Amino acid sequence: MLSLIKSVLVLTVALSVCADFWTDRDKFIKDEESQMLGSSINLTDKEKKVNQILMKFKYNEFDDGFLNPGSFAPSQHFFQARPLIQKSDVYKLLQKIPKGAALHGHDIALVSSEYLYKQTYRNSLYACRINGQLRMRFLQSSQQDKQCNWTLLNVLRILDPSYDSYLRSQINLYTENPKQKYKNINDVWNAFQNIFFTIMGLVTYKPVFEDYFYQSLKELYDDNVMYLEFRGTLPLLYDLNGTEYTPIQTVAVYKEVIEKFKTEYPRFKGARFIYAPLKDDNNSTMYKYVEILKDLKVNFPDLLAGFDLVGQEDTRKPINAYLDQIKQVSAMGIDFFFHAGETNWYDTSSDFNLVDAILLGTKRIGHAYAVTKHPLVVEIVKERQIAIEVCPISNQVLLLVSDMRNHPAATLIANGFPIVISYDDPTLWNGKALSYDFYMAFMGIAGKEADLRLIKQLALNSLLFSSLPADQKQVLISDWETDWTSFVDNVLATYANEIP
Amino acid sequence: MLSLIKSVLVLTVALSVCADFWTDRDKFIKDEESQMLGSSINLTDKEKKVNQILMKFKYNEFDDGFLNPGSFAPSQHFFQARPLIQKSDVYKLLQKIPKGAALHGHDIALVSSEYLYKQTYRNSLYACRINGQLRMRFLQSSQQDKQCNWTLLNVLRILDPSYDSYLRSQINLYTENPKQKYKNINDVWNAFQNIFFTIMGLVTYKPVFEDYFYQSLKELYDDNVMYLEFRGTLPLLYDLNGTEYTPIQTVAVYKEVIEKFKTEYPRFKGARFIYAPLKDDNNSTMYKYVEILKDLKVNFPDLLAGFDLVGQEDTRKPINAYLDQIKQVSAMGIDFFFHAGETNWYDTSSDFNLVDAILLGTKRIGHAYAVTKHPLVVEIVKERQIAIEVCPISNQVLLLVSDMRNHPAATLIANGFPIVISYDDPTLWNGKALSYDFYMAFMGIAGKEADLRLIKQLALNSLLFSSLPADQKQVLISDWETDWTSFVDNVLATYANEIP
Repeated sequence: MLSLIKSVLVLTVALSVCADFWTDRDKFIKDEESQMLGSSINLTDKEKKVNQILMKFKYNEFDDGFLNPGSFAPSQHFFQARPLIQKSDVYKLLQKIPKGAALHGHDIALVSSEYLYKQTYRNSLYACRINGQLRMRFLQSSQQDKQCNWTLLNVLRILDPSYDSYLRSQINLYTENPKQKYKNINDVWNAFQNIFFTIMGLVTYKPVFEDYFYQSLKELYDDNVMYLEFRGTLPLLYDLNGTEYTPIQTVAVYKEVIEKFKTEYPRFKGARFIYAPLKDDNNSTMYKYVEILKDLKVNFPDLLAGFDLVGQEDTRKPINAYLDQIKQVSAMGIDFFFHAGETNWYDTSSDFNLVDAILLGTKRIGHAYAVTKHPLVVEIVKERQIAIEVCPISNQVLLLVSDMRNHPAATLIANGFPIVISYDDPTLWNGKALSYDFYMAFMGIAGKEADLRLIKQLALNSLLFSSLPADQKQVLISDWETDWTSFVDNVLATYANEIP
Repeated sequence: MLSLIKSVLVLTVALSVCADFWTDRDKFIKDEESQMLGSSINLTDKEKKVNQILMKFKYNEFDDGFLNPGSFAPSQHFFQARPLIQKSDVYKLLQKIPKGAALHGHDIALVSSEYLYKQTYRNSLYACRINGQLRMRFLQSSQQDKQCNWTLLNVLRILDPSYDSYLRSQINLYTENPKQKYKNINDVWNAFQNIFFTIMGLVTYKPVFEDYFYQSLKELYDDNVMYLEFRGTLPLLYDLNGTEYTPIQTVAVYKEVIEKFKTEYPRFKGARFIYAPLKDDNNSTMYKYVEILKDLKVNFPDLLAGFDLVGQEDTRKPINAYLDQIKQVSAMGIDFFFHAGETNWYDTSSDFNLVDAILLGTKRIGHAYAVTKHPLVVEIVKERQIAIEVCPISNQVLLLVSDMRNHPAATLIANGFPIVISYDDPTLWNGKALSYDFYMAFMGIAGKEADLRLIKQLALNSLLFSSLPADQKQVLISDWETDWTSFVDNVLATYANEIP
């Protein structure tokens, strides 16, 4: 009898200890979750239903990955993951979600690869090779430009049945076995830069440029992205009789196309331009940028969002090498949106660009891949709400991270940091608009339990951290809320039978 | 004249602005560095000279990697990096450094692969295959055990010239192309577990076991590691006439070997044992562990450091599945040293093991690879000074991380977290003692500027976070300080011409 009493006692104590454990555990996990990006959002009843659908899809894919890690798209290179993502129910739902704005994309790599490729079928496009590298240019005749041995591209196609596959390989980083082709970050950056040179003459032909930029907006629109802030080097446009335009005229084209697009698609809210020329060792080139910026500020005060400098950070000088020009830009009252810390070389010039960007008052940071290694930068970024533009697929293709689950933005999401998700250069890796990157962030970087609240917060962040003046921002957010409400209703109608 | 004055004025303003920038930048970087692990250590003048030598070597290798990323060992898989590391001056210096203690290693994988391989040349070792998997056992004759078709291993060697390479492939994860062979984490874990089964009969033969464990201590000693805390499942030992020993007798062997080793190498300070059996779905097996633990506590109160549970976290039940047994262990006053968060599956059962480990009062955490995704765990780990046992090469070989520069411990180091560096299962990947992992941590995970202070702090941490009672810990630290002083003097003598 005593032993029975003792057993019951032990059991009671054990149960009460266990009950404490489970209560504590629930509280712990809830407390921790309350720090996550999006956790402050309260979903409406309708949104909760949409969330149930989204999470049903997410759990299916996530649990399948947990059991069969080989099937999980975000742990694979995007070149392998892309066809898997296209079949994903999560991806299809993400496409429908009003995602707000794209805040980090580059002028001549905004559009889908397929659209760019189709432009090579235009008449009057010639091709040649300089030092083994493909160039393209629209000409009236092969004799119009004597610097290269030009041949009509459509003739090359007829002469060589393998020409198209060669052409594709010269305008896209895609390869069946990326880890074999690109051994390290410099390999892929070199290929990346070569592609820019190759497509330059194709894209900067004024008629292509107009259509190309229009299509870039259209693809965002179709992906339910309603506003764009894009960086550009202002390449000089040209036309068939050889006229070269000025940087200011390039911006004029942007403005015209944006206006035209907004007229045709009134739900689209426009685009702003961040002048982001290539870091250059030639000091006078750097001063020329400042002059261009002055012109832009006078001629396109509303379109111009700010200034940045581009190029592979590891191999170029740090931001602080251009302090003098930067100070002049600052004196003009122009905001900075610096690329910084797009590296995994810790404590190097590229890594410390994060510090420079902060000290120079950057409004957002492009990539900041290295930010979690910098506690003081992390602190200031949160305190001053400096948004970090996270571009997951770009980081993977440029070999900073292999498996998305190791992306440092997981820590930023867990700690409620001001981040936005963007696409960088989708043209170069068969991307298209924002949904692929949202998929990688939602499925690969964030945890299994991250839900519609995270997506909603990321969309809201893209508007809150845009460069627009407060009043315009408010209009944008209000319009986005309308879109969001429609989205919720549409999903509930379309996926009615998926509600658990 | 006015324009000259204006120019001078502009220049002065620019210079003063710039001067501010550089002052602010220096302060920022210093402030940030003051949060880094090791930053509170003040080096003596002699240590500063050693640091100069170390950093000269480090900068050479690091800068070479920055220019030629393909040459950088820590961004490559250890199977490729190992020969590069062996040539490294940093590595050679790290070997000499008194590194304190190894706090995370597993019973039958502590020794170098080469030593284990050599044991297969012992007489009376038989081999056979069960379901295609190699088994080994010491027998008096092939007929002694009828469960398998045993053949003398040395005969198999003579019959088949390729047998040795087959044998090596069965007792080591090494392969020329790891990314091709191990497609995902489950593949490599399966291979990992198969090796354990294969080597079990080789290692648990009592004479091998004694020599093997002795050699494990010797290799640590030669690597200037003076104390060990190791986890073990307590495999049953056997001898040539087939006698099977008990778990308690296995621990008795450990104790004898440790005493013998300490007698022969008095600078070695001993070892303690963490009983860490395999998580098992059979509830009675789990209760048996508790009984064994009771016996251990009575018979080896000084040798027993605590309790843990092992096995791949993703595919086994979480810690909380064994709450009842764990509570019984806790009631005995035995400390926990749980494996937790050795995963990159965020928000899953394996990931939440981190929360369970914390709630159950773990003294240290094994791996905690996922910890930076858990802000509350991070907070508590720092507040309660729960050391994280970081095993860089293990994490890489088990496919959690590809490039060491993406290891989450970089964030832990940058933020001054209580971490120690350890080696997990070096036998399985051609590791040896601690220096390879120290190399990966120092060159790959920490930043370029991390110096001797980090190494010293890591060594100190390994003693401070050991399970020893405070008085013994103090003796250990004091002896380590003596070793450290000798090391400093030796380096200054040996590398006199390297001092810049």
